[in-house]
Amino acid sequence: MKLGLVQMSVTDVPEHNLSEAVRLTREMAQQGADLVLLPEMFLCPYENSWFRRCAQPERGRIFQTLGEAAAGAGVYLAAGSFPEEDREGRLYNTGYVFDRQGRELARHRKMHLFDIQVEGGQCFRESDTFSPGDTYTVFDTEFGRMGLCICFDIRFPELFSLMVQAGARLVLVPAAFNRTTGPAHWDLVFRQRAVDGQCFTAGAAPARDPAAAYVSYGHSLVVSPWGEVIRRFGTGEQAEVVELDLRQTDAVRKQLPLLSARRTDLYETRWKKD
Amino acid sequence: MKLGLVQMSVTDVPEHNLSEAVRLTREMAQQGADLVLLPEMFLCPYENSWFRRCAQPERGRIFQTLGEAAAGAGVYLAAGSFPEEDREGRLYNTGYVFDRQGRELARHRKMHLFDIQVEGGQCFRESDTFSPGDTYTVFDTEFGRMGLCICFDIRFPELFSLMVQAGARLVLVPAAFNRTTGPAHWDLVFRQRAVDGQCFTAGAAPARDPAAAYVSYGHSLVVSPWGEVIRRFGTGEQAEVVELDLRQTDAVRKQLPLLSARRTDLYETRWKKD
Repeated sequence: MKLGLVQMSVTDVPEHNLSEAVRLTREMAQQGADLVLLPEMFLCPYENSWFRRCAQPERGRIFQTLGEAAAGAGVYLAAGSFPEEDREGRLYNTGYVFDRQGRELARHRKMHLFDIQVEGGQCFRESDTFSPGDTYTVFDTEFGRMGLCICFDIRFPELFSLMVQAGARLVLVPAAFNRTTGPAHWDLVFRQRAVDGQCFTAGAAPARDPAAAYVSYGHSLVVSPWGEVIRRFGTGEQAEVVELDLRQTDAVRKQLPLLSARRTDLYETRWKKD
Repeated sequence: MKLGLVQMSVTDVPEHNLSEAVRLTREMAQQGADLVLLPEMFLCPYENSWFRRCAQPERGRIFQTLGEAAAGAGVYLAAGSFPEEDREGRLYNTGYVFDRQGRELARHRKMHLFDIQVEGGQCFRESDTFSPGDTYTVFDTEFGRMGLCICFDIRFPELFSLMVQAGARLVLVPAAFNRTTGPAHWDLVFRQRAVDGQCFTAGAAPARDPAAAYVSYGHSLVVSPWGEVIRRFGTGEQAEVVELDLRQTDAVRKQLPLLSARRTDLYETRWKKD
């Protein structure tokens, strides 16, 4: 399969960001992409004040536009994330996946909200504005099953394990690490989650804007099930098609049998809600 | 606390290996170590045939000698691992920890046996000889609680999560990666487990012997709770004292609250046996 990885600039003009997302989806499709992955919060700057101003009603106009973009380009579209407001007025950091016909295939609401206070480094409290989602997310394509989580979610091994146990062979992660956590942990966590899950991981970040209140690390990347970085962008605007063979997960799972060697007689990662 | 990290050569003369382990424990203590960490399978070459020939009765002579070494040096001794045979004739890859008085403080039997068959790379089937242990292992010192697992065990996030949930602030890992898995995953897994667990990790490997049937990767290392490599050895014989402040785990856990942000309302890593 061909993954269109999009690292786009996010300006303070949401309409412009949306039209750029649509344009880049079309461009990636023209370059042969089967699935296009957009960054976290591609619609507006990563600031609590913007999240409320820019919040979309569930399955409203932006949702429609993105579905039409997928259908128009004939690709799967993992449409990053944007702020969404439910009928009770709760806000979520929500990502949708559309199929090639533009139908909703999956929806993930960020499950782990990003609250951080590093001395002399990054501070942010996403939970001041957002409510957390309460499900993990996998979906099917003709290439195999995939998982979707958003940014801070990737830091939680249990969530990842649940997606892999559910059959994910590629986990898509719209994300925006920063200049504190990025250099320290970005490559590391995408690589180790791929090794642990014996699956591909792909992270799409906004391009870096040094003038922004929250500065994205950039460096969107794709990692193989052996933990190799297949493609890694710089910090600026960039959009490229990366070729993956999801069957590679079978070979790795056979040669280094981590998933089957788990001591499920002794421990388990359990989803409590079902 | 001061950790004495030992990367020793393992010869085909077990008595020599044992006396070297005792000598290096004393030497590390003289250099101020509070706790000495020996490599996995320091007693004999890493080969299935050696495991059976060299198997020790439970708490037999080698166990006694190591306890006396700890007491003589006045240090905690995490005595790597060696092959051990129980009364039913089952073999285990077993690691003991002794306190400063030479008393047994913990015992870990490798829970995940190393079976690997990489095309054009490493092949090994530990399960041809060993039986797996069935508990995870934490123990207390005046510096805080620590965990212990052996080599392949570190690849399993659930085991690691259980040790951290039980309070481990430093996880000791006698280990022998190889020239296939070492370059690919050694630093990566020690770093990511430290980041996920917001704890220190320390890995002690045998020195590299290119003439051995199984060639150790070496590169013993210590990693901080932020994922930084504090100390990393080369491939040859090396033994050094590394200073750690386990209170650093508190600072990291406060600044980037990963452990408290786990969605334990939705999922859990559960030990099934209790």
